[in-house]
Amino acid sequence: MKKDLPAKKLKVHFEPDNVDIIVDEGDNLLQAAIGAGTHIYAACGGAGTCGTCKVVIEKGEVETERTAKVSDEEFRQGVRQACQSRVISDLAVSIPLESRLESGVLSREGREAVGALATGWRFNPPLGKYFVELLPPTIEDNISDLSRLLRGLKQRYKLSNMTVDFDIVRKLPQILRSSDWKATVTTLVTAVKPRAAEIRRPRVINVEAGETKANHYSLAFDIGTTTVCGQLLDLNQGKVIAQGIDYNGQISYGADVITRIDYCRRKGGLDKLQQTVVATINGVIDQLLDQSQIDREHIGHLGVAGNTTMIQLLLGLDPKYIRLTPYTPAANLIPPVKAGSLGIKVGEHVYLSAYPLVASYVGGDIISGVVGSGVYQRKEKTLYMDIGTNGEIVIGNSDWMVTAACSAGPAFEGGGIKHGMVAASGAIEEFDINPSNLEPVIGTIGGEKPRGICGSGLINIVAGLLEAGVIARNGKFNTDLPTKRVRPGRDGNEYVLAWAPQTQIGKDIVITEVDIDNLIRAKAAMYAGCQTLAKSVGITCSDFDQVIIAGAFGSHIDIEKSIVIGLFPDIPKERFTFIGNGSLLGVRLASFSTDIIDDARRVAQMMTNFELSATPAFMKNYIAALFLPHTNIREFPSVKEKLLKLRKGKLKRGVGV
Amino acid sequence: MKKDLPAKKLKVHFEPDNVDIIVDEGDNLLQAAIGAGTHIYAACGGAGTCGTCKVVIEKGEVETERTAKVSDEEFRQGVRQACQSRVISDLAVSIPLESRLESGVLSREGREAVGALATGWRFNPPLGKYFVELLPPTIEDNISDLSRLLRGLKQRYKLSNMTVDFDIVRKLPQILRSSDWKATVTTLVTAVKPRAAEIRRPRVINVEAGETKANHYSLAFDIGTTTVCGQLLDLNQGKVIAQGIDYNGQISYGADVITRIDYCRRKGGLDKLQQTVVATINGVIDQLLDQSQIDREHIGHLGVAGNTTMIQLLLGLDPKYIRLTPYTPAANLIPPVKAGSLGIKVGEHVYLSAYPLVASYVGGDIISGVVGSGVYQRKEKTLYMDIGTNGEIVIGNSDWMVTAACSAGPAFEGGGIKHGMVAASGAIEEFDINPSNLEPVIGTIGGEKPRGICGSGLINIVAGLLEAGVIARNGKFNTDLPTKRVRPGRDGNEYVLAWAPQTQIGKDIVITEVDIDNLIRAKAAMYAGCQTLAKSVGITCSDFDQVIIAGAFGSHIDIEKSIVIGLFPDIPKERFTFIGNGSLLGVRLASFSTDIIDDARRVAQMMTNFELSATPAFMKNYIAALFLPHTNIREFPSVKEKLLKLRKGKLKRGVGV
Repeated sequence: MKKDLPAKKLKVHFEPDNVDIIVDEGDNLLQAAIGAGTHIYAACGGAGTCGTCKVVIEKGEVETERTAKVSDEEFRQGVRQACQSRVISDLAVSIPLESRLESGVLSREGREAVGALATGWRFNPPLGKYFVELLPPTIEDNISDLSRLLRGLKQRYKLSNMTVDFDIVRKLPQILRSSDWKATVTTLVTAVKPRAAEIRRPRVINVEAGETKANHYSLAFDIGTTTVCGQLLDLNQGKVIAQGIDYNGQISYGADVITRIDYCRRKGGLDKLQQTVVATINGVIDQLLDQSQIDREHIGHLGVAGNTTMIQLLLGLDPKYIRLTPYTPAANLIPPVKAGSLGIKVGEHVYLSAYPLVASYVGGDIISGVVGSGVYQRKEKTLYMDIGTNGEIVIGNSDWMVTAACSAGPAFEGGGIKHGMVAASGAIEEFDINPSNLEPVIGTIGGEKPRGICGSGLINIVAGLLEAGVIARNGKFNTDLPTKRVRPGRDGNEYVLAWAPQTQIGKDIVITEVDIDNLIRAKAAMYAGCQTLAKSVGITCSDFDQVIIAGAFGSHIDIEKSIVIGLFPDIPKERFTFIGNGSLLGVRLASFSTDIIDDARRVAQMMTNFELSATPAFMKNYIAALFLPHTNIREFPSVKEKLLKLRKGKLKRGVGV
Repeated sequence: MKKDLPAKKLKVHFEPDNVDIIVDEGDNLLQAAIGAGTHIYAACGGAGTCGTCKVVIEKGEVETERTAKVSDEEFRQGVRQACQSRVISDLAVSIPLESRLESGVLSREGREAVGALATGWRFNPPLGKYFVELLPPTIEDNISDLSRLLRGLKQRYKLSNMTVDFDIVRKLPQILRSSDWKATVTTLVTAVKPRAAEIRRPRVINVEAGETKANHYSLAFDIGTTTVCGQLLDLNQGKVIAQGIDYNGQISYGADVITRIDYCRRKGGLDKLQQTVVATINGVIDQLLDQSQIDREHIGHLGVAGNTTMIQLLLGLDPKYIRLTPYTPAANLIPPVKAGSLGIKVGEHVYLSAYPLVASYVGGDIISGVVGSGVYQRKEKTLYMDIGTNGEIVIGNSDWMVTAACSAGPAFEGGGIKHGMVAASGAIEEFDINPSNLEPVIGTIGGEKPRGICGSGLINIVAGLLEAGVIARNGKFNTDLPTKRVRPGRDGNEYVLAWAPQTQIGKDIVITEVDIDNLIRAKAAMYAGCQTLAKSVGITCSDFDQVIIAGAFGSHIDIEKSIVIGLFPDIPKERFTFIGNGSLLGVRLASFSTDIIDDARRVAQMMTNFELSATPAFMKNYIAALFLPHTNIREFPSVKEKLLKLRKGKLKRGVGV
């Protein structure tokens, strides 16, 4: 019966985006929000377990499965988990601040990348444009149009042994005759072999009428789990002429790669996620074209890097074996694929080239960052860290390189934290504490009233609380302090960062012992990863000549505070460098230089991957790191000294520690 | 209005095929017949000028543009040109014998090819299958699935530097895990470079679960203007296991390449012709699969050869510049293209490789024949002829090779001949004449009552009439002869081959002076082409050590009779060899041996193309050849002697000559 009757159509209105969507009766409300183009955060991917996708039903009715994530009072106020709700009438829905993702804050600048860039490469983009003026055919010289074109390329540019895309042949005759036998050929180097650059065979991928060398553009993209960043490159000038960013639309299907891999077990799940990230990429391309006023058809190539799961989802490669032991990706060197065949809105001739990757949890984004930052070119022993839910570590120099992935959990991105949120406006990021009255001094992104805590803020808060003696080295609160801000809560003791009236959300914003514990586990995973990897090559964490911190998150964290909590090794501050989006940096350089592509393949091949879960020492190191900054405080001499000073100061002021 | 109202649906029934089709009111009747799957011959492509598509309306009505091709009496009997008629009621239509093409006769065997085959090639098919048993991944060895596969191929077969089709990556993980890490890889050599065979990079085009090396098949096709011939090859055994043939469905859009090129100027014309030949190919593939009981998915490659127009139509490349001076094809070396993308029903991984071609009128079918027959391997000066509407000539040996196309006109295929027809059952092929009473002795294909004259029959008839003195060397009838068979007709004088009651068509079957003139022009074009080409390399037509006659038509013509009319040079009979479908032969050999593919590219490159129309000597030679056998009878000493004998005999019998 259900199949025979057409479903009733219902209208759902979303505020504050002021957008509508028509859905079928019974449709999922989270899906409706995605369909309407609103960004709702759904960390668990719609399983109902995270509570991040709460919305308020202002008008109309939904059918909902209530979970413990919605309190009685919230329920009375109309709060529902979007992922657990089905539309059964026309609706007006408002998305509260906590559940919203705003694209605006994505573009805030992090620290500038300095002192850590690959050098010595030639400007020789894999994408080439060549103008030829051919002699028109005569009865004495009536070789085929394609042969004439290739002869012209050989005579003028010494290009030979080219492979040719079949599609060229379809349009070539018309183009040559429409343009008085003057044409511009686009070539792409796809079959690069390290150490045998002489056998590169450029592929002819496009031909245009007349002289079009001025229109020579390429796209560089980093496909992140949370955000997608793109740049439009002018290959004549060798520079970035536009950049754009947006949340990866897949975020509504889960915050981390594991949730998304699981989502692919549903029927049509892989297709859905594939289409979703492609829609995000298309949106960013639109931004780039708007900014630059460049014609879409003038884009000749698309370079991408991302973690292995993101790349497999983009390419429609089932990611399930990434999650299952022994964690094998589908391919390390991805064969070139036409971008249009994936749904990406660029010319038919455009290939997508993905950065080579190392393993399921050491993706092309890491290779890209390592290459872009030039780690492989220098003798200095370098630690390269990309910090996030899926943290990655590389240790090495020009002679050797080892890598490992650390599953740090979502704390660095605000996940699993009571008032955690992504780094959007209103997130508490700066934190200081008045040692005399233990009152906080907080700063938020965008300077607005606070509405939550982002990952970098969390580090600063925990470091500050430790330095002020509000928490002990085991992360537990000191309850003897003369302040109302420390109080018992549902998740153990907590510290009130902002009282309800001073917030945007009308509730006290607190940090709990459970939150602190989550952060400790996250930083312990990263640090133990470094230790284990360093040990494997016979060095210790104090031996690094350089530490490179990559990732948007990394750009906003405080080095000293990170050392205080034991996330970073305790070495001099001047050895640290931030490179921001290292992945995007590497893709950009590879778009400018075929040398860099060669290097990337070489780096991917020289890199040894450690599966930390298969290394017994890792668990030992991890447990030892579950203290602030570490069980063995001698690993952190500068922190030891600070805490000692604090202790002395407090003793002076008569405050217990 | 017309757009808003749905067109009225009408049913058209065709006899003797007993098939129906539903069409819209106003639809063209020829199109309806094609749609219903009947083979109607439409030499002019539906322009209304040839009169070959006549049908009889048995029931119902058509709207028709009557042309001079339909006589008053025919019109009264319901005869209409299908191409000039629109369906305006339900119809019963019968297709008379003259307009029908029957597939059955296509498969009649010609002479066996002997003594002219390429030799010395190794059996090393471009399509390869490799079985690998991989070690399953472990946590210590968890490289990507693709890397594992390529490692396996390298270890076991020393295959390296392979390029990989992206589609492989999509299915690889599932396949490897479903088959206990045993798989069979299909590879194809696509980028062959003459004289640098060491840089061949096989391309991985498919992967199958388990050991499937037993299923290793390839298709070889000759795409002719009139017929499409295919063979299914077993690449394990190196032999043909099925062969099939059908009329090229495009025949209903015109008999020759020029008519079809013109058809492409219509809106959608190119697409229509492309789809039509693909439908024919798909039909032949079905035949091959039926015969062999092979699974379609086990076909790994499709090799084709054809003249330049046929190949461009198949590939959807607009052929218009083939027809316009200076006659340039789109490409000589066609890049590999996925067969499925053209609509050919084979697995998604199957590439179509087309034989390299030389010029607009010297196609891959000629290269294929020259390579297959080994002309390029021998020192002997060889004349290679493919006789047909578009005749092609090659002269050469292992050191040099020249070629030219001769536009002979349609006479050899029965076109432009009053009772001409293709070589189908009922076509008069054998002809002798009783010198005493000038009565004919005729033999038809299939032994049926005659219904027309095919090309090979035409040669035999004209030679016989000349030898009997019924016609003079200028092709005109001797009207003083004591026979009723020579009589005046609409097209000048004519000779009655069969009286109406003895035919299938109920009309006298005659050969007219116009017919003879058409044949003379056709043979003159071929012979003058040979002469001009021979002269260009400093030899004469009597210098050939070997003459190779290719083509289905060639296989059925009589050497001596052809010399008598001056089609072939007058050299000893034992120097002639027939190789039948040389094009198909060459494709088959190329499917068996990558060496042959190398050779083919080399031959295509060494071959010098002469545009006869740009060579003044050609016209002089042509005019001199417009006599039987030739104006200069010393070129044909054996014919001179024969005619001299005849003259003596006749003089003895008192018959004027």
